[in-house]
Amino acid sequence: MLIVQKFGGTSVGDLERIGNVAKRVAKSKDQGNDLVVVVSAMSGETNKLIGYADHFSKSPAVREMDMLLSSGERVTSALLSIALQEMGYDAVSMSGRKAGIYTDEKHTSARISHINTKNMQNNLKEGKIIIVAGFQGITDDDNVSTLGRGGSDLSAVAIAGAMGADLCEIYTDVDGVYTTDPRIERNARKIDKISYDEMLEFASLGAKVLQNRSVEMAKKLNVNLVTRSSFNENEGTLITKEENIMEEPIVSGIALDKNQARVSLRDVKDEPGIAAKIFSTLAENSINVDMIIQNVGHDGTTNLGFTVPENELETAKNIMEELNAAKNLEYDNNIAKVSIVGVGMKNHSGVAGTAFSTMADNNINIEMISTSEIKISMIVDEKYSELAVRSLHQAYSLDQKS
Amino acid sequence: MLIVQKFGGTSVGDLERIGNVAKRVAKSKDQGNDLVVVVSAMSGETNKLIGYADHFSKSPAVREMDMLLSSGERVTSALLSIALQEMGYDAVSMSGRKAGIYTDEKHTSARISHINTKNMQNNLKEGKIIIVAGFQGITDDDNVSTLGRGGSDLSAVAIAGAMGADLCEIYTDVDGVYTTDPRIERNARKIDKISYDEMLEFASLGAKVLQNRSVEMAKKLNVNLVTRSSFNENEGTLITKEENIMEEPIVSGIALDKNQARVSLRDVKDEPGIAAKIFSTLAENSINVDMIIQNVGHDGTTNLGFTVPENELETAKNIMEELNAAKNLEYDNNIAKVSIVGVGMKNHSGVAGTAFSTMADNNINIEMISTSEIKISMIVDEKYSELAVRSLHQAYSLDQKS
Repeated sequence: MLIVQKFGGTSVGDLERIGNVAKRVAKSKDQGNDLVVVVSAMSGETNKLIGYADHFSKSPAVREMDMLLSSGERVTSALLSIALQEMGYDAVSMSGRKAGIYTDEKHTSARISHINTKNMQNNLKEGKIIIVAGFQGITDDDNVSTLGRGGSDLSAVAIAGAMGADLCEIYTDVDGVYTTDPRIERNARKIDKISYDEMLEFASLGAKVLQNRSVEMAKKLNVNLVTRSSFNENEGTLITKEENIMEEPIVSGIALDKNQARVSLRDVKDEPGIAAKIFSTLAENSINVDMIIQNVGHDGTTNLGFTVPENELETAKNIMEELNAAKNLEYDNNIAKVSIVGVGMKNHSGVAGTAFSTMADNNINIEMISTSEIKISMIVDEKYSELAVRSLHQAYSLDQKS
Repeated sequence: MLIVQKFGGTSVGDLERIGNVAKRVAKSKDQGNDLVVVVSAMSGETNKLIGYADHFSKSPAVREMDMLLSSGERVTSALLSIALQEMGYDAVSMSGRKAGIYTDEKHTSARISHINTKNMQNNLKEGKIIIVAGFQGITDDDNVSTLGRGGSDLSAVAIAGAMGADLCEIYTDVDGVYTTDPRIERNARKIDKISYDEMLEFASLGAKVLQNRSVEMAKKLNVNLVTRSSFNENEGTLITKEENIMEEPIVSGIALDKNQARVSLRDVKDEPGIAAKIFSTLAENSINVDMIIQNVGHDGTTNLGFTVPENELETAKNIMEELNAAKNLEYDNNIAKVSIVGVGMKNHSGVAGTAFSTMADNNINIEMISTSEIKISMIVDEKYSELAVRSLHQAYSLDQKS
């Protein structure tokens, strides 16, 4: 098999851990696999360099930032290569440029445009383990670029796609994707397989294990993605095409996002396009509006509610007051979003019914609802949110293997 | 003027110092100069990375070492560029590759083969200050290479030569080249101008300010080299062609090297080619033999003496005993080499006479002597060596401007 393995900053956080990664890579090589290994900077390095730049400028030129930030991954790739060579393996480190990763010119948040795999292919043919400095590429005018936060995952997925790898393993400090947060529900179970779309929902609902950008790219390039721990031998979670999952459960998991706040506008100004004005102003200020509800009050007035990330509430408040959009403005920081995710929902009615009756049984008031084909999200009082997660986890029997 | 400025690890040792370097560079730019600035890694960084590699392997592959070690200079170049941009100057950082520095494939001690100055020339035309990551280049097969210790000086001199710069300023933590070590003779005077050949003698005699390799390259490429301090505004020492120095003093300075040991072989075996065997075996073991004296004793036996660096004495001892080269072997660690350097000697007799009479006046026994066109070296008892330096400094009136 051709496997792309990616080890993040925590997995290569110190020399001992880099040594452990080397052993892990060696074992996979011994099993007969061809390997391309993508590494991040040692944890803390990138932030240290950002701090250095910050000493000189609050808005350093992005081209120079990329020259600065791309150095950390180069260090890790060289060290891992040295460690593998010492163990008797033929390894070769490559910068993003040497691995043929071309990007656009949006320095510090560049997008991969294409990968010239020739150099990697040639080295694989010679039996070498390739160690690629993640997070970085080269622009068409030959300047180093970086891909932004989570960029090493993107490097790995893009390489797996371009090389037609059988598997792309993302190693982190967690075992995989769980039916819900094990700190909230101790019967939470690791999911063996999950579809790209479900993973996208989980990721956007705050599951830290993978970023949306990487999952989207994996879906687009049809890359079989595995997320697993670098600290144990557990199997991890495979993220793949829906067709590859034989028995898809109706509900895959329950997500909880406490980092939400609600803005309520009662008695909204009777002015054409006022809603459009509100949301375009919020967008201009880069505020991520999530759920939106509009209804007409019993006295004919319009009420509008939406949620934003907690840390963007202050800015949202200022905008609402400046716009003077409604007679009555209310803000609520003490809410949370509980979401039920599962591709099986599409073909099974009754999922929403179970959700609502579970909430009712526990006397939890649902303040807002939004649904998609594979997700139901409910806004509830934050103090009942963990109870809601546990009750739903049980109601859908998520502790039992489907 | 086109000036190449090089700042070493101590000069860019922390963020505050990088800020000071930025101010210094800006000032030179304000004076109307075109600037290429070469920087080292922040002091300690390269040793830290070597320590990391050492954790994994006692003999890491040199290609990987270069991938590892080249990162430190990239960081400094980006930071200095950011600092200058914040001050309103147009600056651009460049890796060795981007600066067009091509080397052979002797990783970790590569030699510069040629410099493609096109990218630097284009950026200079646009008025930019170019910040080059020193110590590194790229091989013809496109791998990062490093130039070995002192490599950033070489980068600077080679760039100055290739660009036809008017001046190459090497900034360190000392003011320049002195007539002798100021810690030994407080009347030591900074030398304003000195020839390449004299500087080469001083460098090989242990003056730390510049390495031989850089001075040799400056001589070959006819680069006017200035060594000066980055911590004050003092003028420094210009190292240039002999013709450029109007009034060359007879003697330029006195050098002292305490890091010497003597091996004496009395009653050397009467065997053809025994001397050749001794010195070829020492050479095979990479021992740097400096002075050699051979004479025939009054009873017809042959005596042989030579000096080696103190830290190579043990190996030399073992070799001598293995060869069983002489009946009587003696070793002396407590010697020092005092040298008088000056191109003026060539045309002035009497320099040696003054040296010998000065030593005699102070009752200092000269144990070995070696001379060249521009140098007289004497081996003396280490405990009299500083007295010898002070006496000679006075004898040649080095405290007075010539």
